[in-house]
Amino acid sequence: ADARAGRQKITTCQACHGLDGLSKNPEAPNLAGQIEGYLVKALADYKSGARQNESMNIVAKDLSEQDMADIAAYYSSIEVDVLPP
Amino acid sequence: ADARAGRQKITTCQACHGLDGLSKNPEAPNLAGQIEGYLVKALADYKSGARQNESMNIVAKDLSEQDMADIAAYYSSIEVDVLPP
Repeated sequence: ADARAGRQKITTCQACHGLDGLSKNPEAPNLAGQIEGYLVKALADYKSGARQNESMNIVAKDLSEQDMADIAAYYSSIEVDVLPP
Repeated sequence: ADARAGRQKITTCQACHGLDGLSKNPEAPNLAGQIEGYLVKALADYKSGARQNESMNIVAKDLSEQDMADIAAYYSSIEVDVLPP
């Protein structure tokens, strides 16, 4: 998986999830710094239909396994600092 | 929704998602600072079975709507800083 390649593949993603991985839409999750394997599984499940979301099922349909891996690598690579609660 | 009440309800959640909302488990997502409505929907979908995950379907089954709202409020209230990519 190649985070730099992933950054070139998020034209559609960033409308809702941001280039920085911060949600631009109250229904879309933040993806910045998210666990890479979790993101790969989410994309695969949206593509297969195992996970249902009107927008994501359409978007994921056209992604290859390599695309999904690269996009997950990109978003997971964004560094986040958490202020302990 | 009451984030302080939510903090008292995450005994089970924190094993995988942390008290700080950072994943302790390669299959579990970070929840710190996540969009509140997204978290409420995730919990409701795990409870109903619309979203499938072996652990989460069991955990969510016993949560009330108030519990789900409070837990979502807690995790979403954790502040995160993102370092722009």
